[in-house]
Amino acid sequence: MTESTYPFNTLNEFAFSVFKKIGCTDEEARLATDVLLSADLRGIDSHGLARLSGYIRLWEANRINAQPNIKIIHESPSTAVVDGDGGLGLVVAPKAMEIAIAKAKQCGTGWVSVQHSNHFGIAGYHAMMALDHDMIGIAMTNASPLVAPTYSIERLLGTNPIAVAIPADKQPPFVADMATTTAANGKLEILQRKNKEAPLGWIQDKEGKPSTNPHELKDGGALVPLGSDFEHGSHKGYGLGSIVDIFSAVLSGANYGPWVPPFVSFLAPLADPVGKGIGHFFGAMRVDAFRPADEFKSHMDNWITRFRSAKTVKGKERVLIPGDPEREINAIRIKEGIPLNPKVAEDLKELAKKFELDF
Amino acid sequence: MTESTYPFNTLNEFAFSVFKKIGCTDEEARLATDVLLSADLRGIDSHGLARLSGYIRLWEANRINAQPNIKIIHESPSTAVVDGDGGLGLVVAPKAMEIAIAKAKQCGTGWVSVQHSNHFGIAGYHAMMALDHDMIGIAMTNASPLVAPTYSIERLLGTNPIAVAIPADKQPPFVADMATTTAANGKLEILQRKNKEAPLGWIQDKEGKPSTNPHELKDGGALVPLGSDFEHGSHKGYGLGSIVDIFSAVLSGANYGPWVPPFVSFLAPLADPVGKGIGHFFGAMRVDAFRPADEFKSHMDNWITRFRSAKTVKGKERVLIPGDPEREINAIRIKEGIPLNPKVAEDLKELAKKFELDF
Repeated sequence: MTESTYPFNTLNEFAFSVFKKIGCTDEEARLATDVLLSADLRGIDSHGLARLSGYIRLWEANRINAQPNIKIIHESPSTAVVDGDGGLGLVVAPKAMEIAIAKAKQCGTGWVSVQHSNHFGIAGYHAMMALDHDMIGIAMTNASPLVAPTYSIERLLGTNPIAVAIPADKQPPFVADMATTTAANGKLEILQRKNKEAPLGWIQDKEGKPSTNPHELKDGGALVPLGSDFEHGSHKGYGLGSIVDIFSAVLSGANYGPWVPPFVSFLAPLADPVGKGIGHFFGAMRVDAFRPADEFKSHMDNWITRFRSAKTVKGKERVLIPGDPEREINAIRIKEGIPLNPKVAEDLKELAKKFELDF
Repeated sequence: MTESTYPFNTLNEFAFSVFKKIGCTDEEARLATDVLLSADLRGIDSHGLARLSGYIRLWEANRINAQPNIKIIHESPSTAVVDGDGGLGLVVAPKAMEIAIAKAKQCGTGWVSVQHSNHFGIAGYHAMMALDHDMIGIAMTNASPLVAPTYSIERLLGTNPIAVAIPADKQPPFVADMATTTAANGKLEILQRKNKEAPLGWIQDKEGKPSTNPHELKDGGALVPLGSDFEHGSHKGYGLGSIVDIFSAVLSGANYGPWVPPFVSFLAPLADPVGKGIGHFFGAMRVDAFRPADEFKSHMDNWITRFRSAKTVKGKERVLIPGDPEREINAIRIKEGIPLNPKVAEDLKELAKKFELDF
C-alpha cells in the first residue's frame, strides 16, 4: 500500500464534519479541526488525522464529552484552573490558552492549569497562539504512562511534551515542541508499522535493559526519558517529564503519573483515579512586560540569525532553529496536500461510512 | 594530595570574611556566602568554594561590582526586569528571586528577568527560596558559551541550567536542578583533574566528532546538548538551552549566545556586546493560586511516594526523586564537614594571604 496525498481543504472539511456529527458546536468543531490538521500540516503525522478515529472511539465509550461546559474553577490575577468537563483536548486546550493570554494582557503573564481534559493534539499549536499578541507561549501536557523513570522498570510518566513559542520580527518565530523522552511515541509508531529496529537508547525491555525492538512496550517495556541512560542524563529527562506532570495535573487536580487514563478506548482507566481526566499547563508572557516589544523582537532576529549561520559539522548544510523543519513542511503541505498513511486513510473511510459522509 | 574535610562553620565564616574584604555589606556578604556554601553542602562542588578565587579575580579585573545598585528597570504586576549593576550573581539572584516571590504574593505568580549580572552559584538555591512560601520556584541562567548546537561546531550556548523546586507536605520537596547539556561542566572538570576519559556522548571535537578527551574544549571542542546526538534528541537539549538563553537574556537585555562574557578573568568579553553582563530568569508560582495548598501538597506527597516506591531495575535499590541525592549529601556535610579538593584548599589559602585572613 502506498501513501496517497489529499488536498488540505478536503481533509479539513472532512474532520470538521466528523466533529459536527458527534455533536460539537460549529465553533468548537472548527477549533478542533484547526488544531488537529495543524499537526498534519507541520509533519507531526502521529498527532493529526491519525488520531481522529481514536478520539471517536473514546467518544463512543463516553470518555470524551463533545458538549463540555468548560469553566474556570479557581483563579488569581495571573492564574486560573480550568475544568475541561471531559471535552476534546483539541477544544479545551485552545480555550484555556485564550484565558492565559487574557490574563497576560491584564497583568503581564497568565498561567492556566487544566483538569478533566483529553489528548490535546500538538503542544506547539497552543504555544503559538501567543505569537500574534507579541507574547511568548508555553504549552505542556501529561499523557498516558509509557515512560520509565531512570532506574525503574515501571511506566509512570507519559511522553509529556513541552512547547515554547517566541516571537521575532523579520525572522520566523522560535518554536520548540518536544517530548521529554529520547524519541516521541509517534517516531516509535512509524518503526512499528515498518517493523524496523529502533536505535539503542530509545526503549528498554521489561527488565530495564536497552532494547531495539519497537514492539517492546507490548511486552512490558518502556520508552526512556530524554538522555537515554543515567550516564547521559536520563535523570534530567525524567525530571523534565515530572515537572510537566506536576504542573499539568497536581496543580490542576487531574490524574498524574501512572493514574493518567489511557488514550485508547480498549484500555480502561485505573479504578482509583487521583484526579479528573488528564492535565495540561499553559503560559503566556507579554514581551513588553519585560522590555519594549520591538527591542525584544529585533534581538530575537539577531539571536536567530547568529545561530542559523553557525558553522556546521561536515555533511550538514545548516544549523536549525527550533520550528524550522515544521514550518518548511507546513509551507509545502498547504500547497501540495497532505500524504496519509494507507492505514489512516482506511480509518477515515470507516469514519465516513459510520457518519454517512463522503471521503 | 588527598582531600581534607573542613567544618561547615569554618568555611562559612571564611567566605563571609572574603566577601566583606572586597567591600560587600554585611547583609550581602552573608547572602553571597549562603548561596556559595549551599553548593558545597549539596555536593555540587564545582559551584561552591571552588569558584571563590575566580570571583575575586573578576572583581580585581573590575568585572564584578561588590557594591551594586540592584534595581527594577521595567515591571508589570506579575513581571520585572532587574538590573544587577554588575554585582555578584550570588547577591543579584536571590534579590531578584525575592522580587518574583513578592509579585507572586500580589497576583499569583511573579517572573523576573535579570540583566548585568554574573555567575549565580547553583540554580537550585534560588528556586528553593520559594518553598517556604508554599510556592513553586523556578530559576535559570545563561552562561559563557561552551556548548555547540546540534550539527554545529561553534560554541554558542552555556550549560544553561534549569531548576524547579516544588513543595510537598510530609515528604521533602521535589528539587530538579539540571544543566541542559548531557553532562554539567563541573563533571568534566572532575575528569580533567583526574585525567580520565569522558563517556562518549558528552563532548565533541573541533570538527564535531564525538570525543572522550576531557581536555577537548581547549582544542576547539564543545560540550553537547542533553541528548548527545540528533538520533537521541540533542536538538531537544539545544532547544532547552536556547529557551534558557532567551528568557534570561533576550527578555532582560543581557548578553546572549556567543556574546555571554567568560566567567574567567583571563578571557576578555567580546568587543561587541549585545547587552549587559549575563542574564538570569526566575519564577515563583503560589500553589494556592491554583488549588488549596494543603490539597496540592498532599497530592505531591502521593506523587513522590508512588515514584519513590517504583520497581527498580536489577542492581538498583530505589528510584530517586529529583533532589534526593543533594539533600542526603547536605545532611551529611552539615554534620561531618565539607571535603575540599587540595587545589581548592590551596586557592583559599592564597585568598587568606591576600586579604590577611586565617585559613
